[in-house]
Amino acid sequence: MDLLTDLQGEFWFTEPHTPNAGLTLKVKKQLYHRQSEYQLVEMFQTYDFGIMMTIDKLVMLTERDEAAYHEMIVHVPALMHPAPKTALVVGGGDGGTLRELIRHPSIERAVQVEIDEAVVEASRRHFPWAEEVYQNSRVELIIDDALKYVKETRDRFDIVVVDSTDPVGPAVKLFEENFYSNVRDCLTENGLMSCQIGAPFYHLEHVQETLETIRRVFGNGELYLAHMPGYPSGLWSLGLASKQLPLDTPPDLQRLKAMIGDLRYYNEDLHSGAFALPQYVRKQVKL
Amino acid sequence: MDLLTDLQGEFWFTEPHTPNAGLTLKVKKQLYHRQSEYQLVEMFQTYDFGIMMTIDKLVMLTERDEAAYHEMIVHVPALMHPAPKTALVVGGGDGGTLRELIRHPSIERAVQVEIDEAVVEASRRHFPWAEEVYQNSRVELIIDDALKYVKETRDRFDIVVVDSTDPVGPAVKLFEENFYSNVRDCLTENGLMSCQIGAPFYHLEHVQETLETIRRVFGNGELYLAHMPGYPSGLWSLGLASKQLPLDTPPDLQRLKAMIGDLRYYNEDLHSGAFALPQYVRKQVKL
Repeated sequence: MDLLTDLQGEFWFTEPHTPNAGLTLKVKKQLYHRQSEYQLVEMFQTYDFGIMMTIDKLVMLTERDEAAYHEMIVHVPALMHPAPKTALVVGGGDGGTLRELIRHPSIERAVQVEIDEAVVEASRRHFPWAEEVYQNSRVELIIDDALKYVKETRDRFDIVVVDSTDPVGPAVKLFEENFYSNVRDCLTENGLMSCQIGAPFYHLEHVQETLETIRRVFGNGELYLAHMPGYPSGLWSLGLASKQLPLDTPPDLQRLKAMIGDLRYYNEDLHSGAFALPQYVRKQVKL
Repeated sequence: MDLLTDLQGEFWFTEPHTPNAGLTLKVKKQLYHRQSEYQLVEMFQTYDFGIMMTIDKLVMLTERDEAAYHEMIVHVPALMHPAPKTALVVGGGDGGTLRELIRHPSIERAVQVEIDEAVVEASRRHFPWAEEVYQNSRVELIIDDALKYVKETRDRFDIVVVDSTDPVGPAVKLFEENFYSNVRDCLTENGLMSCQIGAPFYHLEHVQETLETIRRVFGNGELYLAHMPGYPSGLWSLGLASKQLPLDTPPDLQRLKAMIGDLRYYNEDLHSGAFALPQYVRKQVKL
């Protein structure tokens, strides 16, 4: 099956989720195409999912559904932390995670370490939120290898969001114990880490192994879920771990109230509901 | 885009979820094909989703993910009811809903009213659970129009599960006020109804209108969600209403404990977690 098939003048982008199943989206036109040092970065205007970024032919995000992922990966830890001032984003060159972080007035400094400048360039040109986000004075962009950054930095962060690509190519090591140890060491005392893990429906063992790695490193760790129609199976798992804050700390409803008018997916019901795992997942990940 | 495309000897079944987005599954072979009085009923052996039933080219269920839908539509009401003895299934000719109902030892009689005998025939031949379910002495199959049945029956049921197809063709009237009124009148005093509604991501207005209809009829009604990778967007909404039992009645953990070893999706965490709605849904459906 071709990834981009011309059917009588129509262009369909198909992402195989397995060799035998996939999502297919009709594309109006290609907006961006650059083979960077690391990967092939492309942007498309789709008919029903807005602007879509793909890396090495895999859907990274679409305008239509990205809010679920970005709001969940940011607001779950950020509203549990009593007053987050500093945040680090690993990856996330599309700017969606930064956008959600700077909704929090307490955030004074949000550092993003993205390995591939092409991802930032494509996003600034085509995602409607990105240029404004990168121009925000609280945002600091570093084009570098985050593995090296978390190992070497002496800065400490209240929130670290690991907004990586899938564990292929440059992101493989972002799922390993050594990396998570360095992330833990970058956290302040009340600090929290969130990270993207994968689709339990298709990759349950990868999800389990990643969660186990996190639990070994932090001594705690939970899985939570977000509904992402553009991602394989439509359900994505995120990980949450902390240096010392209990993982059942409730979100700060006062701070949420001030921002909920701008949110599309996250709310206080989902904050706890997202940790309820289907039985096939719960069985596999309970230690 | 053809629904079944031959790409160099490979067969791909594609369900358009919108005119511009869809799920595509590789098919090994067709198992069943019958144009009934009502609709085109087909069964396929897929590579990654097991056996799949389609009606009028729409995915009804696949072996791989049907448990989420059937367990959630049955066990949420059945474990809230103190001791359900009688159940009515509207539609559900594939037998999955019946299979979950008869897991409850208290159920003495489960009546299914399915309009299309072809759905039952195809399922009994090809779904591994169906023949045994239909031979169970507590199961009573009626091939008839459920609209008429719920209007005319004098029987009363503890649980009514409306396991309909989408609101096209014969199922349109199963989403209307008159039908839900008759369902309410079929319930015993502690009776509960669950029903399938649709994909909030694609059809939010339909979901809202159906829930409003249910709330008008029952004076109560809540939405809950199940992750269904084979359905549009991967997230499906179900409705719950009762004659008098509060909709926040917790599930009976004693009865759940005796059956959870056989469940793949439902558990007590999800029982409440599934009612947590994404903000874009909650905003739309809160009255």
